[in-house]
Amino acid sequence: MNIPDKVINRLSLYHFIIEDLRDDEQYVTSAKIAQLLDIDDSQVRKDIKFLDNCGKCRVGYDVKKLKAAIEKSLCNSKKTDAFIIGAGNLGSALAKYEAFQEYGLNIQALFDNDPEKIGTIINGKEVFDLTKIRNLTEGLGVEIAILTVPKENAKGTAQYLAEAGIKYIWNFTPCILNVPKDVKVWNENLIGSFLQFTNSDNRE
Amino acid sequence: MNIPDKVINRLSLYHFIIEDLRDDEQYVTSAKIAQLLDIDDSQVRKDIKFLDNCGKCRVGYDVKKLKAAIEKSLCNSKKTDAFIIGAGNLGSALAKYEAFQEYGLNIQALFDNDPEKIGTIINGKEVFDLTKIRNLTEGLGVEIAILTVPKENAKGTAQYLAEAGIKYIWNFTPCILNVPKDVKVWNENLIGSFLQFTNSDNRE
Repeated sequence: MNIPDKVINRLSLYHFIIEDLRDDEQYVTSAKIAQLLDIDDSQVRKDIKFLDNCGKCRVGYDVKKLKAAIEKSLCNSKKTDAFIIGAGNLGSALAKYEAFQEYGLNIQALFDNDPEKIGTIINGKEVFDLTKIRNLTEGLGVEIAILTVPKENAKGTAQYLAEAGIKYIWNFTPCILNVPKDVKVWNENLIGSFLQFTNSDNRE
Repeated sequence: MNIPDKVINRLSLYHFIIEDLRDDEQYVTSAKIAQLLDIDDSQVRKDIKFLDNCGKCRVGYDVKKLKAAIEKSLCNSKKTDAFIIGAGNLGSALAKYEAFQEYGLNIQALFDNDPEKIGTIINGKEVFDLTKIRNLTEGLGVEIAILTVPKENAKGTAQYLAEAGIKYIWNFTPCILNVPKDVKVWNENLIGSFLQFTNSDNRE
């Protein structure tokens, strides 16, 4: 089933909550989830309706069933491999972001053009010379690149990634990339996120 | 006017595009913006209708007017001050994210509990002992904290921030915070973002 983006986002937050429950908590209510996220509990129930076998019963949702249902709907059974481009602070932080692994995103390696970074190991992942990416993209069958280079290098690097066979770019730079049609870009727009936050009713 | 979150997000992307135009480009069309973002140009025109004096004319939008209109609608005229909590890779990356300053987010300082980090300077901003935050929140009138601590410290730290007078938490941890009602949390859900990406039609 095609689940809307906003629902996917909230379902992953519900999963964080479930992961965080005590082992002896067998049921969780939509009211509890809603209260933790400061949203309406009808919204929670509506979102969960997108799932199969969500474990709904008289006293709430069966925690194990709800957890499994979210994972079945959202996480691929096999891992998604990706490269991180840029081994600076942001690239390093994402390479160390343990939750990615839990939710099916497997960082294979990092790439940089700084000789001081090339050859170093970040959280068990090697930093390669960016010029090696074509070989590794082909060799490992990796199609996703997470772009964390400085803004001024973003467009050139994206072009280079496209030529190297990358098909999906998760773009953390505040820059719109101009790539061939067969490469898809997902903008992680931190500025937009900040502006939403400061323009939301919550901030009034 | 109350602009929907998705529209705010896209308007900020349009602003990235405008910033990136050559100096001699006086007009920009909705078709050009749409093509760069791989969205429909009717969507671009609809979004821009939320702005006053957007500079629309026969040959497109007047670049300077459109830029000013987006800034007027989205960016506060005065800077928004914030603290970064956690001076690890992610906190450091955000302290160095120059675009924040351009869009009105001013990082005043960082906080950590690691003696080796306390007293260091990251991009001109000092790292303070977390126990000092109450004084600095009151002294500087800062209400926003950007939370980048390890997952296992997230809930405790959020509680501590609430007690120190922080009113808004931009949460980068994969953890749902349980804070008093008067503290608002904005979850920067990287996992949700990744799952949206991998579940989108683009990935099929």
